[in-house]
Amino acid sequence: MDVIERVERCLEETIESNRGPFCPPGLDQAIQYAVFPGGARIRPKICLAVADACGEDHPEISDAAAASIELLHCASLVHDDLPCFDDSPLRRGRPSVHHAFGERLAVLTGDALIVLAFQALTRAASRAPERLPQLIEIIARSVGMHSGIVAGQAWECEPEVNLADYQQLKTGSLFAAATAAGAAAAGVDPKPWRALGENIGSAYQVVDDILDVAGDAEQLGKPIGQDEARGHPSSVREMGLNGARRHFESVMAGIVEKIPPCPGRARLKARVMEESSKFLPASLAEHAA
Amino acid sequence: MDVIERVERCLEETIESNRGPFCPPGLDQAIQYAVFPGGARIRPKICLAVADACGEDHPEISDAAAASIELLHCASLVHDDLPCFDDSPLRRGRPSVHHAFGERLAVLTGDALIVLAFQALTRAASRAPERLPQLIEIIARSVGMHSGIVAGQAWECEPEVNLADYQQLKTGSLFAAATAAGAAAAGVDPKPWRALGENIGSAYQVVDDILDVAGDAEQLGKPIGQDEARGHPSSVREMGLNGARRHFESVMAGIVEKIPPCPGRARLKARVMEESSKFLPASLAEHAA
Repeated sequence: MDVIERVERCLEETIESNRGPFCPPGLDQAIQYAVFPGGARIRPKICLAVADACGEDHPEISDAAAASIELLHCASLVHDDLPCFDDSPLRRGRPSVHHAFGERLAVLTGDALIVLAFQALTRAASRAPERLPQLIEIIARSVGMHSGIVAGQAWECEPEVNLADYQQLKTGSLFAAATAAGAAAAGVDPKPWRALGENIGSAYQVVDDILDVAGDAEQLGKPIGQDEARGHPSSVREMGLNGARRHFESVMAGIVEKIPPCPGRARLKARVMEESSKFLPASLAEHAA
Repeated sequence: MDVIERVERCLEETIESNRGPFCPPGLDQAIQYAVFPGGARIRPKICLAVADACGEDHPEISDAAAASIELLHCASLVHDDLPCFDDSPLRRGRPSVHHAFGERLAVLTGDALIVLAFQALTRAASRAPERLPQLIEIIARSVGMHSGIVAGQAWECEPEVNLADYQQLKTGSLFAAATAAGAAAAGVDPKPWRALGENIGSAYQVVDDILDVAGDAEQLGKPIGQDEARGHPSSVREMGLNGARRHFESVMAGIVEKIPPCPGRARLKARVMEESSKFLPASLAEHAA
């Protein structure tokens, strides 16, 4: 099975298995809308690629880890788009969840997706329950109050913030969880795997900052110019456009060295290069060369 | 140790152990504010009372279950008070979280508390990890998309809703989780324990509906008349004030019969009666007699 099909299937199954007769129709639709069709699914793809490279023995646990991470990513987008944050009318080229379903269902959709992420992990881990506590800890940390997305987003409410810390919390943490959880799902020590995810996350975030200035709103499916308009910390604001491009190149150059020894290292290296080469559109990458 | 001291201590320790150098100060304060000082802490007290009656062998797991349930309750209050829902200026006699800290930190506080609830459970269960999956399942169900608080709140966005189903989701589910998780934390089959929690939840919800009509805003620490103003399903709207009082009496009369056989049944019976007798202020209870 193609990896993207695998990601879509485990997301569908996770949501389907949590449907019930008491699920309100509006919430049910809003949850579907928030998760499908998705974006690049980069985090779950990386998670599955790491699990595969580590010699996964329980694919259903890797599936759940990947799904859990993507659900938390979707939850963060829904809440991040809310009027009190970015007030974004568009996401993935169509109305954001609160524009399509109202603000109340958008808040609840985010909440439901967070809960669902932990349920998915728990159910899948029944064949190797000793892996569950570590997986929950890895994934909870990456979204929580002191080292995860929530912390990153809350730094936007502070008068001053260190750019690198902010980007690590808001973006790097979930990428680090993707690589660490991929390893832990395969029964492998996750610690050496965090640096790979952090570096992929850094590259991704720098590109996100570049695209917010130099990208195309239609291609991106969301408005541009938001970092400047909202005063968000941004690599481009701190380093300028060319500085940000050079930073991207230097992070990219070191990424594959971060892959720890594992049975499928060559295969993983190829996948990481393939995924991260898609980050920056060719037209913008050429400028940096 | 007094049970309320025990509840406060485990909430304090749970939050403290999740603090870190990257936790933004505003979010940190808002989380503290959302959890302390608390209300009656009725759900965690019931959870601990059930664990005790079941002969708890790992008090740290009961503590975490109780803390987890209370954190989820606090999260639901913070999100429920948001402008897009009840737009409540007051909670527990002082400004609600979004009034004190702004809407963005209120959304993030709720999100952080949900994540923290699952982290607390996971860490505490290290001494009896075989109990973790069941505890997560019980607690996640009680807040999730098809049988928990989120579902209950989302039914408020639907044109029609069955009152009993709505109350079971919005209130009963977390009370049922409190009794079931108390049993599961003690290594006892949780299924027979759900009915007790559901019934305590019903009694609590009817009283909440009565107080919204006949209570005192200052004593309650929140505005009254909200169910009518917002068109929320309510026992009083459906049965009238006297009908609701009679319904409360009939639920109360059957509560102690729902306590399954267990070593500390007599002690638990006394505690359940004591806690639930505080639900309805004497002035209002007399009317019903």
